[in-house]
Amino acid sequence: MRFTSEQRLDVGVLEREFTLGEIPGTLWTPGPAPAPLILIGHNGGLHKRESRLVARARHAAAEYGYAVAAIDHPGHGGRPRSAVDEQARADLRRAMAAGEPVDEIFESFIGPLVEKAVPEWRTTLDALLALPEIGGPVGYSGMTAIGIRLAVVEPRIAAAGFFAGGYVPRAQREEARQVTIPLLFLLQWDDEGNDRQSALDLFDAFGTKEKTLHANMGGHAGTPWFEVDDGDRFFGRHLR
Amino acid sequence: MRFTSEQRLDVGVLEREFTLGEIPGTLWTPGPAPAPLILIGHNGGLHKRESRLVARARHAAAEYGYAVAAIDHPGHGGRPRSAVDEQARADLRRAMAAGEPVDEIFESFIGPLVEKAVPEWRTTLDALLALPEIGGPVGYSGMTAIGIRLAVVEPRIAAAGFFAGGYVPRAQREEARQVTIPLLFLLQWDDEGNDRQSALDLFDAFGTKEKTLHANMGGHAGTPWFEVDDGDRFFGRHLR
Repeated sequence: MRFTSEQRLDVGVLEREFTLGEIPGTLWTPGPAPAPLILIGHNGGLHKRESRLVARARHAAAEYGYAVAAIDHPGHGGRPRSAVDEQARADLRRAMAAGEPVDEIFESFIGPLVEKAVPEWRTTLDALLALPEIGGPVGYSGMTAIGIRLAVVEPRIAAAGFFAGGYVPRAQREEARQVTIPLLFLLQWDDEGNDRQSALDLFDAFGTKEKTLHANMGGHAGTPWFEVDDGDRFFGRHLR
Repeated sequence: MRFTSEQRLDVGVLEREFTLGEIPGTLWTPGPAPAPLILIGHNGGLHKRESRLVARARHAAAEYGYAVAAIDHPGHGGRPRSAVDEQARADLRRAMAAGEPVDEIFESFIGPLVEKAVPEWRTTLDALLALPEIGGPVGYSGMTAIGIRLAVVEPRIAAAGFFAGGYVPRAQREEARQVTIPLLFLLQWDDEGNDRQSALDLFDAFGTKEKTLHANMGGHAGTPWFEVDDGDRFFGRHLR
């Protein structure tokens, strides 16, 4: 893990860019003492430097004392996109414009994304937990598809907050019942790119007994800011 | 409003029993300065002195600085039950034991309960807001059926937390779209006495744009304690 830049924020948080092999990431730490860690997994147009993601990460570090890490998954942010990814995105745009079904197209690129991203998260986790300012336990917050697989295969993930707005491949829908860690599942009630019933079915399917659903009005990008605090408090119950 | 007993709690909260005409109630106040007010509406086997209700009220007063009031609705707690109420309850027990439909029985006594309880809440609210230690604004927390009607007819209610576990008469299901104040709707996912889909439909029907659903695993009485804090924080966003 190589730190490529650092910035000390007014709120006392140290914000550092890093690379780990091909993986670019950002790490926010609240101070030198070992802090519990939250991994932020994102998708779609998002980027580890996207302003809302950065605001969430800074808030969690400054107000709640978490270390927070985000990475750009393969094909995201500044990372190169494969020809296959580019083709899938073009197919998706065309199908959406034509009002055609999109599930198979999503399946063709979110499925492989999960397969590639989860090992990268585990490698990143190894490197992060070797730092003295990160103590664990570890939570995951963000994209559901990657989060399900990570929660199933990675015993160091102690709690997770999943955002329901995004395609979840059939393989991860099947794996949902193997998720047994405490969960907070966040749903936008009128998410234009996500079927509500399908999200409720997924919530029902998770294997854990300690799961909570928070649903708010509005579309995909309309999650109210107070859910950021609710998420930090959820992790406070399980990572402290 | 006549105070019939008072107790100063360790946490600095003053807990007083009162009567207002036929209405018995309890008032918790955090101090002499005007505090925002939360009304707790309860039902079923509950009573204004039920231990979990009392714990919630004390917590809201001590930790969050709210004044909190609970009353016993007609036929509840120590109040006399009418012959009609007694008959309805006997019918309900018999129908449940026989596995017969119960909606019409609930309709026959929850409907009239709403009609009687809401004017009592408004009278209580008049008396409470005349006290120097209560400032408003006012929130309502508890039973959905009474809360819907109260939110529709009482403009002093600024925000409400409804518990989905309980029968909601057809009249209140219709009125739900007239509810336009911020709402927190609390659902027990496996509530044995409450149809999940019917609760989700009701959440969908509320007219307000600022509504949030919190769903947790478990049965009717299994709401986790952290939802008490979440409710207090919800009111903090709307009553401060």
